[in-house]
Amino acid sequence: MSQVNVPVVRNILQANERIAAANRKRFEDAGIYALNLMSSPGAGKTSLLERTIEKLAGHVRMAVIEGDLQTSQDAERIQRKGVQAVQINTDGGCHLDGNMVQIAMDALDLGNLDLLIIENVGNLVCPAEFNLGEHDKIVILSVTEGDDKPSKYPAMFQQSSVLLINKIDLLPYIECDVEKIRRDARRLNAHQEVFEVSCRTGEGLDAWYAWLEEHVRDHRKR
Amino acid sequence: MSQVNVPVVRNILQANERIAAANRKRFEDAGIYALNLMSSPGAGKTSLLERTIEKLAGHVRMAVIEGDLQTSQDAERIQRKGVQAVQINTDGGCHLDGNMVQIAMDALDLGNLDLLIIENVGNLVCPAEFNLGEHDKIVILSVTEGDDKPSKYPAMFQQSSVLLINKIDLLPYIECDVEKIRRDARRLNAHQEVFEVSCRTGEGLDAWYAWLEEHVRDHRKR
Repeated sequence: MSQVNVPVVRNILQANERIAAANRKRFEDAGIYALNLMSSPGAGKTSLLERTIEKLAGHVRMAVIEGDLQTSQDAERIQRKGVQAVQINTDGGCHLDGNMVQIAMDALDLGNLDLLIIENVGNLVCPAEFNLGEHDKIVILSVTEGDDKPSKYPAMFQQSSVLLINKIDLLPYIECDVEKIRRDARRLNAHQEVFEVSCRTGEGLDAWYAWLEEHVRDHRKR
Repeated sequence: MSQVNVPVVRNILQANERIAAANRKRFEDAGIYALNLMSSPGAGKTSLLERTIEKLAGHVRMAVIEGDLQTSQDAERIQRKGVQAVQINTDGGCHLDGNMVQIAMDALDLGNLDLLIIENVGNLVCPAEFNLGEHDKIVILSVTEGDDKPSKYPAMFQQSSVLLINKIDLLPYIECDVEKIRRDARRLNAHQEVFEVSCRTGEGLDAWYAWLEEHVRDHRKR
């Protein structure tokens, strides 16, 4: 985004903030906890969703909005788990924005939901700039991406309430200092919750489920 | 980029094409072969550069332009290998453009170069839209990112002359169908050269070095 001249960018971001605020109000009115899930391509967003859906099935009413450049492969993966999934195709666009989510929300029965997870386009840069109306941003970093990523892509880590360090089952086979990831992320965002997980083996996910269920309860309409 | 209104985007891309063409002419005049190296964060761009510099030292005169959001960590990694490296900090911007490269080129002694590799911002989406004046685009995909990436991020694969499938040393520990990557990439770009490599172990890199040296020779000023 940054190469467009600055007033244009400012107008776009301001317009987006207005729409995001309207989305947020709709979430609040319906008692829905909304998350914006972000990462590089292939860090494990859809795998985390699949695991989370299996765990929460039966006691949390959940839907997913899937953002992708072109395909609906991820929405199909989610639907196979028995959860309502709406696909947004950005037609090559590098991030979701408030307007896309607003349109997608119209395809969901908001009155029957506790939790909405919005899976953003796989991109560790641009999605951090656009609020969607979510309560919290979640970033997944795969250990295979390297331990220098928080310092090199700071905006994403500054803004995310939760950092999931994924694919820890691969740590024996690569060079990655998880303590450095934690240290650099803490410097950017002292209040961030950090969970070390493997969406493949399930290791560490119980702490994530507990965090998520607590936040769903807190946002349910009393 | 796609959320900005269309005429604005068109003007930006047209202006970029003009600058990229001017960069290209400077490369041609100096007999320099120029590459635009792209991938997701952490797929192995800088590791590939380190290996390539070691291999080509002594017989190819090489420089690197490093694109990053904020830090100069990668340029420092490259300089430690004894090669001229210029850092571009995009200040959060999600891709390099022709103008940034034009400015960076002024810091290089073009008359004494055979090869310029421009390492783009780690992002599998936006960099594909902006020509820098390079002769060829190179994309690296790590097997840890998953075998669905060519179909989900097609522009990057359509435009790249070479696909390096990296981290093949991790294949025994993950689920990734390399044949599917090859098949989907071939559908997008039938003329693409594909190399399976491990920048960690060095496996498969000889074919990449041979390809690169052949192209450097072809572009040298006769």
